[in-house]
Amino acid sequence: MHIGVIGSGALGLYYGAMLQRAGHRVSFLLRSDYDAISSQGLQVHSINGDFELSRVEGYQSADRIGHVDLILIGLKTFANQHLVELVQPLAGPDTAILTLQNGLGNEELLAETFPAEKILGGVAFLCSNRGEPGHVHHLGEGRIRLGEFCGGLSPRSQQLAEIFSQAGVPCEAVDDLRKIRWEKLIWNIPFNGLTALTDKNVTELLSHPPTRALVRDIMAEVVAAANAQQLTSPINGGPFIERMIQMTEPMLGYSPSMMVDRRKNRPLELEAIYAIPLKMAAKAGVGMPRTEMLYSLLALGEKDPDRK
Amino acid sequence: MHIGVIGSGALGLYYGAMLQRAGHRVSFLLRSDYDAISSQGLQVHSINGDFELSRVEGYQSADRIGHVDLILIGLKTFANQHLVELVQPLAGPDTAILTLQNGLGNEELLAETFPAEKILGGVAFLCSNRGEPGHVHHLGEGRIRLGEFCGGLSPRSQQLAEIFSQAGVPCEAVDDLRKIRWEKLIWNIPFNGLTALTDKNVTELLSHPPTRALVRDIMAEVVAAANAQQLTSPINGGPFIERMIQMTEPMLGYSPSMMVDRRKNRPLELEAIYAIPLKMAAKAGVGMPRTEMLYSLLALGEKDPDRK
Repeated sequence: MHIGVIGSGALGLYYGAMLQRAGHRVSFLLRSDYDAISSQGLQVHSINGDFELSRVEGYQSADRIGHVDLILIGLKTFANQHLVELVQPLAGPDTAILTLQNGLGNEELLAETFPAEKILGGVAFLCSNRGEPGHVHHLGEGRIRLGEFCGGLSPRSQQLAEIFSQAGVPCEAVDDLRKIRWEKLIWNIPFNGLTALTDKNVTELLSHPPTRALVRDIMAEVVAAANAQQLTSPINGGPFIERMIQMTEPMLGYSPSMMVDRRKNRPLELEAIYAIPLKMAAKAGVGMPRTEMLYSLLALGEKDPDRK
Repeated sequence: MHIGVIGSGALGLYYGAMLQRAGHRVSFLLRSDYDAISSQGLQVHSINGDFELSRVEGYQSADRIGHVDLILIGLKTFANQHLVELVQPLAGPDTAILTLQNGLGNEELLAETFPAEKILGGVAFLCSNRGEPGHVHHLGEGRIRLGEFCGGLSPRSQQLAEIFSQAGVPCEAVDDLRKIRWEKLIWNIPFNGLTALTDKNVTELLSHPPTRALVRDIMAEVVAAANAQQLTSPINGGPFIERMIQMTEPMLGYSPSMMVDRRKNRPLELEAIYAIPLKMAAKAGVGMPRTEMLYSLLALGEKDPDRK
């Protein structure tokens, strides 16, 4: 299978590398890492064992990649104004477009230009960071859940899940993409924002009882908003929240990408992770006072004149 | 009148200086400013005109001050474990004890040791900062409202208001101390905490519509909590909040003391401004989700191992 990776950050590089190692042809659209990867290849430092791809097919322009079988999108959502122009050159008549971007609104944006039935979305539970140019660090987790934008459990989504799984990336196809997107937000909305706002990592948040309680309160707001979206089945808030906390406990000292981005004074993915979910909750009549407060405070920080 | 100032920070130094300039004898308990003030006096840089007190009666120990007519307390509440021992040596049989400290719980703490009828409390609307040792900057406002801990409009409270007013500090005696304390919290709870948490000043908060709305939402929480405390008359939330916002608009670029303290990695007055009001609101059955969230996040920051 020929796979094009758009948005080769920590997520795109890691999954692309895993797929290439499994024998697929992978074309990476690269920006800052282009020189390093072209000359030295890609080094993956993984909790499951390090490996190196000495030859990587890297491009500086999407136009030169040509049509692929699968477009894997890991672009940061704050760059979504470029999404369509980056995807367009890779999208042929039989291309599947899979966005693993954070938050809500990404499939909808693609569907404004591409046929809805070409589009899939997925959520990645991946702890990874970029290191030096040409290096990516896989710190934990890694599994993906994906589904059709049009809904239902298609043969194609199951085939893609198989491809990932065979490449060492546990992957499950589901029938309700919207549900898994909201489920992911139950983690992202508290942890991404609170760590970015306070510059304290997930362990520090969970070790301080008042912020541990706050994480749960925010998660409960997201569950309530999710369950007002007519999902195929409701999320069982109590046990789900408990599971999210349990899953986070072992991620000792983990700094989510939003915390890293804020620390490096980079823009944050506020639209996809906060603004659109808040709009959808409000439309369904669900109040999210803590989430709204968090969004307001994060957005205030974006107004820093020194921000790149 | 002989006045002893306990807690000679920006507030204690400014009011003490105004009273001394008006002809009162003022004894300052000093710590970090002792050397500078002993050798060079106290410089007041005020929007109403700079002035200098070349001779200042400064002490390094409260024991050496002796009994005074009025004890003026400006101690930061995070040092309240020392409050009684600092006040004790100044308190004679006819001494009035006036705390202008922030938040709730200060009069109650004094009343555990001193007779309740000796105690008054007040709220200061003062924009001031300390500069170099021996310098205090009066940036705006300055008025005081004070009242008896035991309630009612006493001749003593009116006399004290007169003394401040004659010294150039607009001052009003009121019959309901608890009400003015809660009214002050309507400003302090949003502005102190949000500026400390985000490192953005009051003007930045008000210029960003979502945080401007957040300030109002938090103010509304405090009004609801206040009006559940059986005040002599309820606070009229809408107009009061509007007035607080209008009052803050001209304070261009003002950094409240809590923001300055956080920036300097000093402890914050979280107990008096957040913990006690939250407890009293909870006791009255009033929820304050945004205030509670703000408190949790501020308290998380206090856990910094580098904090002094």
